[in-house]
Amino acid sequence: CRTMNGGSDLPSVQDAESTAHFLESVFSSPEISVLSSEAKCQRFVKHYNDLNPEEKLTFLKVLSKQYGVHQDSVVLAAQGVTMAKERGEAALLKSEERLRNSLVPRFQQLFQKIGRIEGGVKFLVNMRADILTKAPTIHCEKELARLRVLQNSIRELLTFWFSVGFLKLQRITWESSCDMVQKVSDYEAVHPIRNWADLKRRVGTYRRCFVFTHKSMPKEPVVVLHTALTQDISKSIHSIISTPSLGQVKQAVDSPPAADTEAETLTEDQSKISAAVFYSITSTQKGLQSVDLGNYLIKKAVEELQTEFPGIHKFSSLSPIPGFKDWLITEINKSLKAASLSESVEPPLLYQSEIQKLREIVEPENANMVTVLKGVLQNHTWVSNEHVCQVLQGPLTRLCARYLYTEKRRGYALNPVANFHLSNGAVLWRINWLGDMSMRGINQSCGMMVNYRYFLESTEENSRKYLELREITASEEVKEWAKLTL
Amino acid sequence: CRTMNGGSDLPSVQDAESTAHFLESVFSSPEISVLSSEAKCQRFVKHYNDLNPEEKLTFLKVLSKQYGVHQDSVVLAAQGVTMAKERGEAALLKSEERLRNSLVPRFQQLFQKIGRIEGGVKFLVNMRADILTKAPTIHCEKELARLRVLQNSIRELLTFWFSVGFLKLQRITWESSCDMVQKVSDYEAVHPIRNWADLKRRVGTYRRCFVFTHKSMPKEPVVVLHTALTQDISKSIHSIISTPSLGQVKQAVDSPPAADTEAETLTEDQSKISAAVFYSITSTQKGLQSVDLGNYLIKKAVEELQTEFPGIHKFSSLSPIPGFKDWLITEINKSLKAASLSESVEPPLLYQSEIQKLREIVEPENANMVTVLKGVLQNHTWVSNEHVCQVLQGPLTRLCARYLYTEKRRGYALNPVANFHLSNGAVLWRINWLGDMSMRGINQSCGMMVNYRYFLESTEENSRKYLELREITASEEVKEWAKLTL
Amino acid sequence: CRTMNGGSDLPSVQDAESTAHFLESVFSSPEISVLSSEAKCQRFVKHYNDLNPEEKLTFLKVLSKQYGVHQDSVVLAAQGVTMAKERGEAALLKSEERLRNSLVPRFQQLFQKIGRIEGGVKFLVNMRADILTKAPTIHCEKELARLRVLQNSIRELLTFWFSVGFLKLQRITWESSCDMVQKVSDYEAVHPIRNWADLKRRVGTYRRCFVFTHKSMPKEPVVVLHTALTQDISKSIHSIISTPSLGQVKQAVDSPPAADTEAETLTEDQSKISAAVFYSITSTQKGLQSVDLGNYLIKKAVEELQTEFPGIHKFSSLSPIPGFKDWLITEINKSLKAASLSESVEPPLLYQSEIQKLREIVEPENANMVTVLKGVLQNHTWVSNEHVCQVLQGPLTRLCARYLYTEKRRGYALNPVANFHLSNGAVLWRINWLGDMSMRGINQSCGMMVNYRYFLESTEENSRKYLELREITASEEVKEWAKLTL
Amino acid sequence: CRTMNGGSDLPSVQDAESTAHFLESVFSSPEISVLSSEAKCQRFVKHYNDLNPEEKLTFLKVLSKQYGVHQDSVVLAAQGVTMAKERGEAALLKSEERLRNSLVPRFQQLFQKIGRIEGGVKFLVNMRADILTKAPTIHCEKELARLRVLQNSIRELLTFWFSVGFLKLQRITWESSCDMVQKVSDYEAVHPIRNWADLKRRVGTYRRCFVFTHKSMPKEPVVVLHTALTQDISKSIHSIISTPSLGQVKQAVDSPPAADTEAETLTEDQSKISAAVFYSITSTQKGLQSVDLGNYLIKKAVEELQTEFPGIHKFSSLSPIPGFKDWLITEINKSLKAASLSESVEPPLLYQSEIQKLREIVEPENANMVTVLKGVLQNHTWVSNEHVCQVLQGPLTRLCARYLYTEKRRGYALNPVANFHLSNGAVLWRINWLGDMSMRGINQSCGMMVNYRYFLESTEENSRKYLELREITASEEVKEWAKLTL
Repeated sequence: CRTMNGGSDLPSVQDAESTAHFLESVFSSPEISVLSSEAKCQRFVKHYNDLNPEEKLTFLKVLSKQYGVHQDSVVLAAQGVTMAKERGEAALLKSEERLRNSLVPRFQQLFQKIGRIEGGVKFLVNMRADILTKAPTIHCEKELARLRVLQNSIRELLTFWFSVGFLKLQRITWESSCDMVQKVSDYEAVHPIRNWADLKRRVGTYRRCFVFTHKSMPKEPVVVLHTALTQDISKSIHSIISTPSLGQVKQAVDSPPAADTEAETLTEDQSKISAAVFYSITSTQKGLQSVDLGNYLIKKAVEELQTEFPGIHKFSSLSPIPGFKDWLITEINKSLKAASLSESVEPPLLYQSEIQKLREIVEPENANMVTVLKGVLQNHTWVSNEHVCQVLQGPLTRLCARYLYTEKRRGYALNPVANFHLSNGAVLWRINWLGDMSMRGINQSCGMMVNYRYFLESTEENSRKYLELREITASEEVKEWAKLTL
Repeated sequence: CRTMNGGSDLPSVQDAESTAHFLESVFSSPEISVLSSEAKCQRFVKHYNDLNPEEKLTFLKVLSKQYGVHQDSVVLAAQGVTMAKERGEAALLKSEERLRNSLVPRFQQLFQKIGRIEGGVKFLVNMRADILTKAPTIHCEKELARLRVLQNSIRELLTFWFSVGFLKLQRITWESSCDMVQKVSDYEAVHPIRNWADLKRRVGTYRRCFVFTHKSMPKEPVVVLHTALTQDISKSIHSIISTPSLGQVKQAVDSPPAADTEAETLTEDQSKISAAVFYSITSTQKGLQSVDLGNYLIKKAVEELQTEFPGIHKFSSLSPIPGFKDWLITEINKSLKAASLSESVEPPLLYQSEIQKLREIVEPENANMVTVLKGVLQNHTWVSNEHVCQVLQGPLTRLCARYLYTEKRRGYALNPVANFHLSNGAVLWRINWLGDMSMRGINQSCGMMVNYRYFLESTEENSRKYLELREITASEEVKEWAKLTL
Repeated sequence: CRTMNGGSDLPSVQDAESTAHFLESVFSSPEISVLSSEAKCQRFVKHYNDLNPEEKLTFLKVLSKQYGVHQDSVVLAAQGVTMAKERGEAALLKSEERLRNSLVPRFQQLFQKIGRIEGGVKFLVNMRADILTKAPTIHCEKELARLRVLQNSIRELLTFWFSVGFLKLQRITWESSCDMVQKVSDYEAVHPIRNWADLKRRVGTYRRCFVFTHKSMPKEPVVVLHTALTQDISKSIHSIISTPSLGQVKQAVDSPPAADTEAETLTEDQSKISAAVFYSITSTQKGLQSVDLGNYLIKKAVEELQTEFPGIHKFSSLSPIPGFKDWLITEINKSLKAASLSESVEPPLLYQSEIQKLREIVEPENANMVTVLKGVLQNHTWVSNEHVCQVLQGPLTRLCARYLYTEKRRGYALNPVANFHLSNGAVLWRINWLGDMSMRGINQSCGMMVNYRYFLESTEENSRKYLELREITASEEVKEWAKLTL
Repeated sequence: CRTMNGGSDLPSVQDAESTAHFLESVFSSPEISVLSSEAKCQRFVKHYNDLNPEEKLTFLKVLSKQYGVHQDSVVLAAQGVTMAKERGEAALLKSEERLRNSLVPRFQQLFQKIGRIEGGVKFLVNMRADILTKAPTIHCEKELARLRVLQNSIRELLTFWFSVGFLKLQRITWESSCDMVQKVSDYEAVHPIRNWADLKRRVGTYRRCFVFTHKSMPKEPVVVLHTALTQDISKSIHSIISTPSLGQVKQAVDSPPAADTEAETLTEDQSKISAAVFYSITSTQKGLQSVDLGNYLIKKAVEELQTEFPGIHKFSSLSPIPGFKDWLITEINKSLKAASLSESVEPPLLYQSEIQKLREIVEPENANMVTVLKGVLQNHTWVSNEHVCQVLQGPLTRLCARYLYTEKRRGYALNPVANFHLSNGAVLWRINWLGDMSMRGINQSCGMMVNYRYFLESTEENSRKYLELREITASEEVKEWAKLTL
């Protein structure tokens, strides 16, 4: 692609040459015995790790270009299959074997060996993360296609190696190693942990923090799942963690037993626990993207919880709705543009009854209420005004239901969190007004959260329906909101 | 293959039908969510395990016939590749991806999922063992070809899952669990363990018993390596273990410090340890055949020993020579047949100087000495006769050297133990006369054993030479014997 | 005591002198810092361990004679107390403190320090075992008294150190270390273990083998308790272990689920488990004699079993009756002697109805049936004769009940096993005819066994009654037997 | 003592009565079986724990008064000894046994049983802490004497139970449990830990943090020892931890490799480690006061470090000098008072040469320099004035040497830290000017610190000299300072 873009994609000639030279030495030398291939792998790993980001990209490009499959061999083997067909099944099967082998990229053979050395699996996870990070910056179609083959090759290996039997479920508590607890803290992205007291509570009583670890990446929590044990399915994150909230939130509607600061010394009262609320799940390794892990962790956690608490019969997430506000602003802009062209949008963004209520909170009576809404949402002041909150609850909940239930991408739910839980067989169960009044929550989702509920007896069926038929299972309540015309 | 042989290969129509029916239910149902595929896998495992051996074979035949690759899709995808070539590299890579996918047998997708459930990996190991065991009884070429695809498919998965990073090196001692120690005992095939006192010594002082275990097959030693720590490289198994020996063996030439029964209470004297002798290595799982494990275990053991005993600088096996006597008898018969036809065999089995010495021990002076030799080897009495032993030492050592160094199969050493150690980079170092005077040792190898020595600095080079160039590295002594013309 | 007995008690002058010399060096040197006292203790331990048994005895005698309390200091301090009484309580308390200190033997201070070094506790356990073993051979009263002070001093320390919180309860299974399992086997004295298959069953399904271990004696099971999990309280040891039995035993009346040889692979059916039968308890260390351990182990085992099996509601021992036959023969001889003197023994050994039945099995009608009984019990043949067994069942059971319930030593049960369980609060519950038909069982107790049953709710009360009031709690059945007059 | 002081010591009559009542129930009931005594102990523990501090004191008073020894029995037994003397040694020894038993307070028997229940040992540690805390507030001599017997009784038991073999040495690292690490942080009193980053460094590379834990107080570090691994023996705490320092300290004279914040990721360079500096040792349990633990921890740590780093040959503390400034101010006041009375103090506080130098830093030439010194030390400003520091270094170092080397209490070093290390056999090695420039360090010791160095080969001898002969081993340098007359 050098001719196409003279810009940053172009590796310095020198880099490319030295890389080519290095790779030639790697792939030409016979890789026969256990010992020699191990030494070679270590050399490869060290070489790559010593490169700077730019050099790494060059390296990956050269690697993906030069050491994929031998195109000629593939074509030859493909023809072999066609011809073998007439020589009977045994011959055909043999020729297919040959074709299969010809399709294994040469770098995959190397990666497989790298996976055997200490730290090798982690190296490949990181290398794949590099590819995934760099890919969006590449404009040359060929290069992109090659890098896709490269990262798919790694993904395939990782899928084998991160097979669920090799993952170890661990509960993290205050008794766990500081190192692990600190990592759990560092990786928490959904509801950031503020200090060690906060952290201590998240691994303390009425909480279950589960992680998967993998033999090849010791001391690394690969996926993290935070669970709260409550009486009822929580409506608000503030009843679970002490996220600072803006505004007049009437907190703790369903405040769990452990809301207070002495939680750490409390013993759990099993009789008060009948729900498990998954309030945060994080995959920590970009390089393991699209390797199934989170769903298995939820599954294992459910099993673990059922064993520990036979009384738990309600399982649900309490999830953020990233992207809702962005989507809403886009819809508002569309609506405004349509209005300016005197066109109408179907369904309308706001219904008459909503518009009338909105009028109560603004002065200029004849203003366009969609414009007003946009203005209101521009900053956070509305959350401190109880009256405004009251007026907005209806339309925003309705629009959120529409966003989650109706908006699709390739037939699946547009919202990625929804897509994750629905794939697992959860039900789109309840939208919670003022569920997350943190700055973050207000920015992302106008302070709303959603429960994806897991009814264990129908999880399998729901999952099948969603994945096969693109059909979302939702509660009556949510469906009502989604269909609502006022 | 029903038309070809009406015999035992033919599964009862009923069996085949019910199997076909079951498999249809497995492969037709959509396998979408985590939960549903897990349930299905468990059903599959249970179904197979409940079958009797004959039914299992039927099952495997149907499975391998019906649920391999879609031949049509393969051909189509193969053609796609040819056509894509003209549409540029990006298109080509995409079409190759499609071809690659089309070549994955449907059963492999299922096996991959089975590997994720508890006990699933062990199930596949066992299923592959079944195939390997049954294969030699099958005469239909098609069926054989299909079963080969089936077991290759499992082998490929197992190769991923038994990647060396997932194996755990453990030293077995008398402190290990009874369960594990008993298994180590049960699996010992090279020098059978006679009682618990014997066993206690093999895991005691001046011994290192290493095993690999795997997370998916807990409590199962996958490979077992027995090592003796000695001053010099042992010449005889009797100096290591108390195998009952026949005849007048002058034992304990290099008797290690721990030969006596109080071994268990001895502490090891590090200053007396300068050699590590691998005297038995056993792969316990037929289903893991041709998945590299033994070589890795030796490698890890060497590392472990070097850490524990920086003073050890001699590493060697003390190995049996299975097949030597059988080969020798065959050669004798060939020689006799040639003689009866008045032909000559080159090189001759016995040289003149050897024949003269042999004459000393037999009465009929004009007998054919090859016939005499054959007669002598027929039973064990020769080992009790010191004079006979003395006379036989020369010619048998020489013939053994020829067997190990010169006899080949596809260019590699004919003897499988030799092939294993030479592949790992060991040197064919020393042939030990009267090294194993047990009944077994006399039957297999006329009482001889061999040391394959590991010179760590040249292991890699030796391995390369052997695997690439078919060149055996041997000591001068062995080469002398092999070339000897008296 | 040299003047009293010139015999074997007399240590050679040389021994005594060298010992005195050594001990002087130990006790004279100031024992101040951590480091110096540790070195001294190690010297002491080594010195003693290097002695032969006779020298050890000399050593113990000198030690106990020379390094007890300073008699003069004691007398002085004792007078101090008397005098202090008048100077008020504070002075009195201070003088008592001084007296208390003066009464600590000098060797006890050393022992306390020895307890701190590695292996020191075990050393003292062994040294006390030496004293207990040798004591019966000593005839000099003074020496005996001194040695008693010596071993009491150690016992007191061991009582502190083997406080129950420092003991670790462990369940031994086939997964435990070979070393530990072998020790459990070696120590089993009640029902000797015959081979590893036997042993494997005793730590397998439907069995719980518990031990106490102590930090200071690692890898040493200090007490061992074997438990069988059954449906009903076992009547016979043969239903639990495969002790070879003599005669026509109708085995397995209450054969537990795991009686057969495939026990090892069985999984336990919890629904079939409602009783826990303690069938063997062994203290392994003579040096810990009269340090309470066994009762605590039973207590802990009960707690453990209740946690694991909430369904278990019957706890009982199945105990041997060592000494019964010896006692019976003594009683028979007394009775015969009385008869020869034409005296009568009250209660009579055999009642008329019993005598009549006994007549059925012997020919000489007018023989003395007590003599007949004595003759019958002389060897084992009676157990093979069903008729004889039937006739003997009544009188032997009755006499056994009398032995266990009525015969006393210092007010407590004469039989030591009975005394142990009754002290713990168990009930003398059932005498089992033909409960142990092994050679050992027939020799010790005419084949009978007894259940001491633990009713948890009344254990405390029973124990109090027995220890305080010397009152044995027995079942109605046993009491009936004991009082029976036919 | 009610008549003596009508004040706060007087328990309410009600309290005393209910306590008396409760204790009667405890001590009257027969305490026979394992089960009953356990129940009773638990009742006792619960009862005490539920009391408020004042009630606890009442409780302890009643307990110590009513349930000590029976005075009459003691007197009787004491007389028995006197009389037994004439009846020979055996009788004497027996009577002594009786006397010994009569001297065991009744509460001690109970405490011994309490030590056996879960949490019992910790309970006694806490109860003793209560007594030690309350004792100084009690003015009645009798009560004090009784409480002393009570706490001595507990101390004796604790000395048995905390025998060094029962303590477990653990290294605390960032891999240790959060719970343990947090406790180590909370207990650190010498150089308080400021935040988790600070803490992470203290358990990180070039640091060894050792603790003793005890089976009976799980998760509780009983003693904590912080060690820094350095090239040379550190002169300043700031080179080890990031204590904020006042003034112009030229830090890091002997800055160890790990001073910077990236320490956590560094691997240790063994070649740079030749000294181990114990910079903080803390006993965490007041109730274990005067039970030897710290010295054993240092001993074990030295062993551990020697095993890990054969290259370490310098062992030393870097210790604070609590009390130096207080002592100095007292001396100054004495000196001033003497001056005001025109008396002379010998040795004088300041020498002429020092006075002359001091004059340089103050204006009023004719001021009394001792007054000047007092004024200078009143606040911290002097540390920021390099010139003043320079002038003060001489006299303050000299006075500190005098304080540490010459000042005694009952013949032992007045300074408690000095007394601890000297008892252990360390050498008073070096006084470090500006070693601790934290607020705390300046307040306590005018910013000085001291190294007590452990020369392993002479530790034993030093300890003996100090403890036996009250002789302090000091370096020439320190002795020079101490004797200095300028």
